[in-house]
Amino acid sequence: MNNQQLLQQLCAVIAQRQQADPNDSYVASLHAKGLNKILEKVGEEAIETVLAARDSQQSGDTQPLVGEVADLWFHSLVMLAYFDLDADAILAELARRFDLSGLVEKANRR
Amino acid sequence: MNNQQLLQQLCAVIAQRQQADPNDSYVASLHAKGLNKILEKVGEEAIETVLAARDSQQSGDTQPLVGEVADLWFHSLVMLAYFDLDADAILAELARRFDLSGLVEKANRR
Amino acid sequence: MNNQQLLQQLCAVIAQRQQADPNDSYVASLHAKGLNKILEKVGEEAIETVLAARDSQQSGDTQPLVGEVADLWFHSLVMLAYFDLDADAILAELARRFDLSGLVEKANRR
Amino acid sequence: MNNQQLLQQLCAVIAQRQQADPNDSYVASLHAKGLNKILEKVGEEAIETVLAARDSQQSGDTQPLVGEVADLWFHSLVMLAYFDLDADAILAELARRFDLSGLVEKANRR
Repeated sequence: MNNQQLLQQLCAVIAQRQQADPNDSYVASLHAKGLNKILEKVGEEAIETVLAARDSQQSGDTQPLVGEVADLWFHSLVMLAYFDLDADAILAELARRFDLSGLVEKANRR
Repeated sequence: MNNQQLLQQLCAVIAQRQQADPNDSYVASLHAKGLNKILEKVGEEAIETVLAARDSQQSGDTQPLVGEVADLWFHSLVMLAYFDLDADAILAELARRFDLSGLVEKANRR
Repeated sequence: MNNQQLLQQLCAVIAQRQQADPNDSYVASLHAKGLNKILEKVGEEAIETVLAARDSQQSGDTQPLVGEVADLWFHSLVMLAYFDLDADAILAELARRFDLSGLVEKANRR
Repeated sequence: MNNQQLLQQLCAVIAQRQQADPNDSYVASLHAKGLNKILEKVGEEAIETVLAARDSQQSGDTQPLVGEVADLWFHSLVMLAYFDLDADAILAELARRFDLSGLVEKANRR
């Protein structure tokens, strides 16, 4: 699988579902309930991530942790969509902070 | 800027800094303090994200929110590095859930 | 209403319900699901408290905030009961930190 | 030690310190920084409570957990003071929900 455009694709799916009937789509139902409901989900997934990390440390099984971080990132993207933002804004901010644009450029040149 | 390999590059930077002297690197200092300290940071950034979202809703300025989500994702990646995991695991899980591998494949073919 | 012995009474109710059939009692059902479930609830109520505080700041109506803090404290007590602790342990710790035992003693003397 | 009027006393101390010079008092410094800073502390203490509970489960030592719940309740009271509320509002709400006023009355009659 090619991960490279995945976050952009996922944001496109979220933006599309946001317009759907709240009865047909989880994303649309969160948007219909409003920003507080979306933020509650972000907070809940953060707590579940913390608990799953402690579980992983004890059990050595990291699969549940991966699932919780995926939930946390997904709900972050749903929240960004509420503000007409997507993953590109976050990636651009991370690139700026870590001065990664040069590294990425080099990697693409290969 | 090309965002595509950015998360992989960022994970490589984190994995490298994790080995550094805790006095020289924030990532190394978090790892030296242990998993609880990393998880406290994930939790704190989630709260700050929630508060920044409410601020953005009132002010219309989304830049602080973008900064907080970048912090949240960055600390998620630091936590994953503690378990020898990186962003690929999360993206693969998201692709699986949203059945995005096909979409991505098509997009690459264009 | 006399609030004075209320937390002790509430802890007694929680300790009693903890032994009940999980199908009959919310407290028993949380205990049956285990510590992680109880901790998820503590985290969720903290997020809902934060959101309700922002709502109260905007609306001037503090009743929903009071309800969320009551939920947060109640679930804290359920968590303490998991460890055979109750509100007295927390109040004793607060008294020790704020050197309140003297103040309380004086107040009782009146 | 008599715990009964302790929360009221603690709230009186918080209300008094709220008026102090922010350089002299932690409570005053939190209020000077504003509601978001107070809410960040509530969120942080909730996360630290969750982590301390997991630590207690592993170690059998509950003293750090008691300290974190005391922090969480204390910062809840600082937040309530921001809204000119105190512990009585929370205790009255808990009494109402759990129908404890009768129980308390009976206990006082003994």
